Amino acid sequence: MIDDDGMTGSRSVRRLRNGGWSETVDCLVAEEPLEIRVNDRRFTVTMRTPGADFDLARGLLFAEGVIGSADDIGAMRYCEPEDDADEIGPNLVVVYTWREPASDAQWQRNLISGTSCGLCGKAAIESVTAAVRPIAGEASISAGLLLRLPALLRESQVIFDQTGGLHGAGLFDGTGVCRAAAEDIGRHNAVDKVIGRGLAEGWLPWAADSGSLTLLISGRASFEIVQKALVARIPIVAAVSAASTLAVDLAIANNQTLVGFLRETGMTVYANAGRVVAE
Amino acid sequence: MIDDDGMTGSRSVRRLRNGGWSETVDCLVAEEPLEIRVNDRRFTVTMRTPGADFDLARGLLFAEGVIGSADDIGAMRYCEPEDDADEIGPNLVVVYTWREPASDAQWQRNLISGTSCGLCGKAAIESVTAAVRPIAGEASISAGLLLRLPALLRESQVIFDQTGGLHGAGLFDGTGVCRAAAEDIGRHNAVDKVIGRGLAEGWLPWAADSGSLTLLISGRASFEIVQKALVARIPIVAAVSAASTLAVDLAIANNQTLVGFLRETGMTVYANAGRVVAE
Repeated sequence: MIDDDGMTGSRSVRRLRNGGWSETVDCLVAEEPLEIRVNDRRFTVTMRTPGADFDLARGLLFAEGVIGSADDIGAMRYCEPEDDADEIGPNLVVVYTWREPASDAQWQRNLISGTSCGLCGKAAIESVTAAVRPIAGEASISAGLLLRLPALLRESQVIFDQTGGLHGAGLFDGTGVCRAAAEDIGRHNAVDKVIGRGLAEGWLPWAADSGSLTLLISGRASFEIVQKALVARIPIVAAVSAASTLAVDLAIANNQTLVGFLRETGMTVYANAGRVVAE
Repeated sequence: MIDDDGMTGSRSVRRLRNGGWSETVDCLVAEEPLEIRVNDRRFTVTMRTPGADFDLARGLLFAEGVIGSADDIGAMRYCEPEDDADEIGPNLVVVYTWREPASDAQWQRNLISGTSCGLCGKAAIESVTAAVRPIAGEASISAGLLLRLPALLRESQVIFDQTGGLHGAGLFDGTGVCRAAAEDIGRHNAVDKVIGRGLAEGWLPWAADSGSLTLLISGRASFEIVQKALVARIPIVAAVSAASTLAVDLAIANNQTLVGFLRETGMTVYANAGRVVAE
């Protein structure tokens, strides 16, 4: 389901533009996990757009201090199928360095600490998808209300107005009431903050009989955002910007509605369009 | 250096608008590390904008499967100074759960795997700042060329034109030649890719006598972007969008030039403005 260039993928979508709905095929940015192994030890898993993977591995290991220059790398290649039958070759890069890093400091830094960035730090993408289950229960939102949500979220984005530098996330009920909103330099943090508020107030995880609930984010919808929303059982996710292939696939597989490019005049529905009610 | 609301900070900047330079004080989005400890074990360090930290910790632990509901948390508080003299209270949240997570799976997932997200997964922010040193050597770029760089980068952003969903990063010499460019759904990946290319081709890390070199990113300049650029000794970093307090402070401390809100008609220089030559 990834196009030949590896960087994009095609998906069927429903699109609203200038008041009219159409069914079409959209070109999405590809998102795939890349595992990087150094001398046969797993160093990290990162979600990335395929392409220039060796540059990515080299640059990442350099930034983390595992290598001091490109010359420290003796060989770098994709994992071959015979190496490990369970792994997908193009999503696994193996790096061999001339010597082990001088100290274990770099590994320790990675080993002793976890991660907040959703997917980085997860042993495998399967552990994520295994932890979520399809959303059951009725929820819907009118297309007209959805179109107004970005303006409603901006009303709560006080700091963005000052700095222009923040991601926003909001949770809205079926009448457009904002139940929680947060701003953060990290998009995943803003989502964690609004979900954390809903947990504290007892209306998350969402229950099937508790009315409509939509998570709106000011930026892109990546896999990790959909994953966080799925764990909280949020039935509808909308993003002001694009959605990735993996985000769309995860939403489809779990009966979650996913909307992207949500602007005043239109939207693209990537998954489970039935919950978006045209007027 | 953080304002009373905790979410913004003021910094002195040089601003170009409509052809005229001015010195002013700008309001920046605050970025600070937050360490989350669960039952006295470090779970993660995330870079975030202060505010709603308990919501953030609760939502993050829920997304990661460490807690199954808000009720699993017995107590949550900021670390008090007497707890650990070396830690800053408001950047350390301690969470106590009623019982240890049923399995060690969540911890394992964090423990066995590293991270690619620059700072998440680092034991402490000090380990980052200790690993970089101030940039030495001469480099400069004309303001006029800087203003043209976003258009030059967009010329290489083929996939963005198709999908609208990618971050772009590019490395430009002093005449506007693009030496490396990359696109990725993750901004940190795009930066790793162009730095990885420069390492492979031998012109990174930047050497003091090797002419001007500017890293341009299509989004925001956060701490981790500046950190990656510093490790690669890149003297000038420019972002199309905002810069955070911590990014600016790190750039100032290490003699790196940092530019934000770089558009066709203007820019804001946050650090070491001397390298940006007005015409």
